[in-house]
Amino acid sequence: MIIVSGKAKVKPGAVDAVRDVMEKAILATREEAGCIDYSYGVDVLDSDTIVVLEYWRDAEALEAHFKEPHMAEWMAALTGAGVISQDIRAFEISGERQLLG
Amino acid sequence: MIIVSGKAKVKPGAVDAVRDVMEKAILATREEAGCIDYSYGVDVLDSDTIVVLEYWRDAEALEAHFKEPHMAEWMAALTGAGVISQDIRAFEISGERQLLG
Repeated sequence: MIIVSGKAKVKPGAVDAVRDVMEKAILATREEAGCIDYSYGVDVLDSDTIVVLEYWRDAEALEAHFKEPHMAEWMAALTGAGVISQDIRAFEISGERQLLG
Repeated sequence: MIIVSGKAKVKPGAVDAVRDVMEKAILATREEAGCIDYSYGVDVLDSDTIVVLEYWRDAEALEAHFKEPHMAEWMAALTGAGVISQDIRAFEISGERQLLG
């Protein structure tokens, strides 16, 4: 499995400006083959930062994801809204255990 | 490295009810030895769901984290507010690559 995670800080007000496109992209992504889960959160400590958490079956599924039209639309909207900084990484998972739930 | 991630769904209004304790716990946790980053987000699609994203140096650091008083306070507040469901897991990381940033 692969986890894609990290944070993107955007210009003040940008989260609300892109909210519709973002929600559409999240829902469309969850329907993709190989997408286990895909969520964005608004950082509790900074309402201009988006917390990204994605679980993917494998690298092929993630690669296909970036070719989806809804991703192109979402990336364009995000860039247009103004990304101040971001750090999003893909992690290969070698083991897991349940902590809560 | 270890990623702790997942989501917790709480009763309506509970996120705001625990916000102060939550923010305090986040800031205190970031000061812990072995905590690389620690963030919570409010799910873009569900304001009663918290998205959890934590990066830890190793299992020892994570184990020590659960013994911190600010964690006991936070877990008690969260439980008191009403957790409907949660799925938080610890993942061992065997590789990573930068996607954005």
